[in-house]
Amino acid sequence: MDDPEFLREILGHISSMPGKKVIVHGGGKHATELAGKLQIETHMHLGRRITSLEMLNVAVMVYAGLLNKQLVAQLQGLGCNALGLSGADGNLIRSRKRDPEPFDYGYAGDVEEVNVSLLELLLDSGITPVCCAISHNASGILLNTNADTVAASLAIALSSTYDTRLYYCLDMPGILQDLNDPNSLVKKINSETYRQMLNRGILKDGILPKLQNCFGALEKGVGQVYLGDATILTTSSGTLLEL
Amino acid sequence: MDDPEFLREILGHISSMPGKKVIVHGGGKHATELAGKLQIETHMHLGRRITSLEMLNVAVMVYAGLLNKQLVAQLQGLGCNALGLSGADGNLIRSRKRDPEPFDYGYAGDVEEVNVSLLELLLDSGITPVCCAISHNASGILLNTNADTVAASLAIALSSTYDTRLYYCLDMPGILQDLNDPNSLVKKINSETYRQMLNRGILKDGILPKLQNCFGALEKGVGQVYLGDATILTTSSGTLLEL
Repeated sequence: MDDPEFLREILGHISSMPGKKVIVHGGGKHATELAGKLQIETHMHLGRRITSLEMLNVAVMVYAGLLNKQLVAQLQGLGCNALGLSGADGNLIRSRKRDPEPFDYGYAGDVEEVNVSLLELLLDSGITPVCCAISHNASGILLNTNADTVAASLAIALSSTYDTRLYYCLDMPGILQDLNDPNSLVKKINSETYRQMLNRGILKDGILPKLQNCFGALEKGVGQVYLGDATILTTSSGTLLEL
Repeated sequence: MDDPEFLREILGHISSMPGKKVIVHGGGKHATELAGKLQIETHMHLGRRITSLEMLNVAVMVYAGLLNKQLVAQLQGLGCNALGLSGADGNLIRSRKRDPEPFDYGYAGDVEEVNVSLLELLLDSGITPVCCAISHNASGILLNTNADTVAASLAIALSSTYDTRLYYCLDMPGILQDLNDPNSLVKKINSETYRQMLNRGILKDGILPKLQNCFGALEKGVGQVYLGDATILTTSSGTLLEL
């Protein structure tokens, strides 16, 4: 979401993808930027945002408001009948406020249940849901949720009805053996080679929780997971993950 | 939207209303407040907001983001399966950017077409759409739109399928003969008495465009229009307008 050029490219690929599709987006940099303008400090812990009530409101304004509606309007302009959703809308994603122990992340929610029948209703009507990573506790409270986890949770829920593929769009062509060499793309990873890569310490920081999410999704019914840049959406480039 | 107490009261009435319902909300004071914090000046002309690109982004964040999602989450907490929409979502409201002549209102949109089949899809699935007053031009641009007009436009569109009543919740009990006397409530207005009131100059400022909207809606198929405080939603108080 942070690079308008990349975003236009992704939206072009998305609108020309055949089949039913659900989009999940983040937008952390935009939220941090707005928070800065409002003199709200951004605090992170182990790479995750600490969500004060003020920061939650910023996240809701940026994710569910500005970015979600800009995405939807642009997709509509490309002929894709998009409809934006937070996890509160139609009770799409019910989550639980994360336990304040051992660390208090504030208004952070962990996904508990996905209302897959809402997605089916929309998909079967030719609508493309565009989901932001805000969920709710079903008692009136909105919660900030990890976008990678939301994507995996929706894919898992959808795989009970549809043959489901999960795509993670990154700012690199896929998983690289050597982060400094874009030609070192790993074309395919399965549970066995994943374990080997973990043991060899190839997988660094940001990509590790993503891969954990991916293999979690595969174990729970998602057919394939693709990681890479926007071209993975319409070509078979990038890294393919399978069990 | 500007008074949390009043809002809680309205949401209680809404969630206990029988039948299918669609909610439309504004939130101008919140937008003005956020704009102020971001050092964006608010300019009005003849009581209507001039929407610069910066102000549009604020309106989208506040209306489609914060307020819409708070409303949806609170309604979910009250057992009402709400789903928030802007006019871009599912192409609900296509509008046209207002002509810059004789006055340039910026990113202000006038409603051209309502996608009533989306509302039907949701209503017939037991979902309560919660609509903010942001529309789109179907070519990727979001537009700020008058909430009263959006409410009337949706009611008119719905009246082709459903027996439709339109409720405007105000900060007073209804139309008053004397603004300083809450006991001077006018219980019923029809086209004839409306004309008389216009001639006698009883109707002041803010209420006049609202009544014009109301009679426009009645002429285009809406069964009844009610104006008043939150109690009009569940009782027969307030002012009833009929042709």
